Amino acid sequence: MLVVPLIERKRDGGALTAAEWTALITAYAEGNVPDYQMSALAMAVVFNGLEPAELAALTDAMIGSGARLAFPGFDRPRIDKHSTGGVGDKVSLVLAPLVASCGVAVPMMSGRGLGHTGGTLDKLEAIPGFRTGLTLAEARAQVERIGCAMLGQTPEIAPADRKLYALRDTTGTVESIPLIAASIMSKKLAEGLNGLVLDIKRGSGAFLPKLADELALAETMIRLGDERGCPTVALLTAMDRPLGHACGNALETEEAFAALTGDGPADLMHVTYALATEMLVLAGVTSDRAMARQTLEAAITSGRAAAKCRELIEAQGGNPAVLDDPAGLPQAARVEVFEAPDAGVVSAVEPRTIGKAIVAMGGGRRTIDDVIDPSVGFVITAKPGMSVARGEPLASVYARDADGMAIGLGALREAIRIGAAPAEPLPLVSHRVTRDGVEELA
Amino acid sequence: MLVVPLIERKRDGGALTAAEWTALITAYAEGNVPDYQMSALAMAVVFNGLEPAELAALTDAMIGSGARLAFPGFDRPRIDKHSTGGVGDKVSLVLAPLVASCGVAVPMMSGRGLGHTGGTLDKLEAIPGFRTGLTLAEARAQVERIGCAMLGQTPEIAPADRKLYALRDTTGTVESIPLIAASIMSKKLAEGLNGLVLDIKRGSGAFLPKLADELALAETMIRLGDERGCPTVALLTAMDRPLGHACGNALETEEAFAALTGDGPADLMHVTYALATEMLVLAGVTSDRAMARQTLEAAITSGRAAAKCRELIEAQGGNPAVLDDPAGLPQAARVEVFEAPDAGVVSAVEPRTIGKAIVAMGGGRRTIDDVIDPSVGFVITAKPGMSVARGEPLASVYARDADGMAIGLGALREAIRIGAAPAEPLPLVSHRVTRDGVEELA
Repeated sequence: MLVVPLIERKRDGGALTAAEWTALITAYAEGNVPDYQMSALAMAVVFNGLEPAELAALTDAMIGSGARLAFPGFDRPRIDKHSTGGVGDKVSLVLAPLVASCGVAVPMMSGRGLGHTGGTLDKLEAIPGFRTGLTLAEARAQVERIGCAMLGQTPEIAPADRKLYALRDTTGTVESIPLIAASIMSKKLAEGLNGLVLDIKRGSGAFLPKLADELALAETMIRLGDERGCPTVALLTAMDRPLGHACGNALETEEAFAALTGDGPADLMHVTYALATEMLVLAGVTSDRAMARQTLEAAITSGRAAAKCRELIEAQGGNPAVLDDPAGLPQAARVEVFEAPDAGVVSAVEPRTIGKAIVAMGGGRRTIDDVIDPSVGFVITAKPGMSVARGEPLASVYARDADGMAIGLGALREAIRIGAAPAEPLPLVSHRVTRDGVEELA
Repeated sequence: MLVVPLIERKRDGGALTAAEWTALITAYAEGNVPDYQMSALAMAVVFNGLEPAELAALTDAMIGSGARLAFPGFDRPRIDKHSTGGVGDKVSLVLAPLVASCGVAVPMMSGRGLGHTGGTLDKLEAIPGFRTGLTLAEARAQVERIGCAMLGQTPEIAPADRKLYALRDTTGTVESIPLIAASIMSKKLAEGLNGLVLDIKRGSGAFLPKLADELALAETMIRLGDERGCPTVALLTAMDRPLGHACGNALETEEAFAALTGDGPADLMHVTYALATEMLVLAGVTSDRAMARQTLEAAITSGRAAAKCRELIEAQGGNPAVLDDPAGLPQAARVEVFEAPDAGVVSAVEPRTIGKAIVAMGGGRRTIDDVIDPSVGFVITAKPGMSVARGEPLASVYARDADGMAIGLGALREAIRIGAAPAEPLPLVSHRVTRDGVEELA
């Protein structure tokens, strides 16, 4: 196919037709359009954007490049959640069994950590034996049997997106709202969902720095989902500090288990309940949000959510006893307490500094091939706004050696700022976005 | 090297350092930066441009990727001309021997036709036996011996430019003034020149459609040349109609021979003398432009220019007798006269239509590997502003077969417009641009 005229048209502010996007993405997935043409086109899209019809065609072409999860004859509603990623964000590990224990099916496809943000698959794989590489057939059978499955993007799902994403990652063309939206939604819409909740992170630790961009991304993905029979709702949540206390794969998994048994940190529970409420409402379990919240709390206090999590772990090859005895998770060789160097009010706990330190300590990836050490990380009890005395314990560092410990302690000195200035943390859940508009919640 | 941060910086409106451009172009030429990264960067440059220091570094890096012509111990001034390309533009074939016959050395490196514009190498190769593939050593020896050489871009000259240009041609990233300027000047500055004249074409048949862009390109190239010890002057010349009468390789070569023996069309001679005058002044032959013009006219009337052309043809493997007997050039199988379909004033002779017809008739390239038929083309005596009677001969079509003849006649019907509206052709030479500014000449 003649690609140059398409690149030139997009470069000059024009639009490609739906048929052109379909042909282009199909040819690219089959290796018939070279990477150097696709990267030039992607850069033109970074500058000139995509019209709604182009975005729809691109997303559909990426979905169509692969297989879809389908659930013929299975009548339970299927709802998933997607997060744009953050530090300490272990919500998925709580949410999937919690919502599944309320009668909603959750076929959840997640990613790995890259850059300063963690990934759900890495957290799950901190559980010895836990297998995230399910095939679509295995995932479908497991969802139909126990109501949830947690897996990675299989090679069958949206291979064109996989190829295009890898190209964008190496050509400075990630930062485009329509390309981000098409990439996320092509994977999610291939899961055969009846509804989707988006957790769009805000603040210094988030992927997109500006509220206007976050709202635009939310609105773009909601339109794509709604138009494809997958009602979609977005919550904007705080990522100006880590979520919960634990940061690092095994530590976050342990905190997720605590949350499922009623011992989760307040901020983690607040965000988890808010997202889970949307999932229950989308599933039609109830339209009464207070009722939904009660149902969720009851699932935790009754032990049903934890039981569902044990089922999930067992179904995917792990030992379910780890939920009740986290000593079965990988343990760091060294642990040290970090104490407040001064008295005052905590004005910031900078998530990027924490996320990058985890990578430097061996708990994250610099390249996609890195092997990670799941045991390292932090448990940070300090939160913005908290008054602290000098010498008061603010966090623990979990490291595999002295170098890692030095990195971890240095990162905390940098990340936790104590001053007289009052902290103004973002509201935990600030906006709710639906096809009907933006609702400010706080 | 880490290319993604460089792409991102250029994408976000920043600049690369000179050292970064040098490292990047060196690595690209050596195959250590993939095409898909370079094309994304080129697209970012299309949108965000280059700062002067970036442009200088890019140009120097492309020159530095290869060899340069050098003339140690040779004291004659060396001046070249570059044209941005047009239809019927056989100026180089007249200019090189003409200026060389006035005591100025002309090491002229030219290109091939691509798209609707012709190329000097193709016109020269219409001469049986003429060899354009000189090595740099051959070109140097010939310039020192007879004062001129006409050759193609050798693999030794600016290989990074060659590779980058091929990539830009397939990725919609040709249309960038700094990238065009860097590409042209990296080749010209590798010729070891003491001065350079640029012929920037204007009008519907030109590469750049807008005067502002043409002036920007001229100023950009002049700055690059001047800063590198190669004083550079640009003339803006008309390409809203073909230059001269002949369009097509062998026909243009024949017209160039006529120009050298005193029988050139007035418009071709006007543009040729204007460019040649600049070359003589740059060479220091004289600072008096009227004197330069007299010197040039005398070179033609005395036969010295034609004699230099015979030397040139002989030196590069052709039979010099062809200059005096153009029957030695390839002859088209069919010739037909095109007559005015109506009486009136010629309002336009559209060069793009003519240029594209030559390609369709077999006289140009659709892809770089096409073999061309040098015999086909047009001799068009109609010029905008000319009053014509119905049935008056306006042009001849030279074709290899009936299909080609039909294409040629059809193209003339479309290209030559006859109406009551007065024609307003562009001035043949409208602007002179130097480091001191823009001078409007007409």
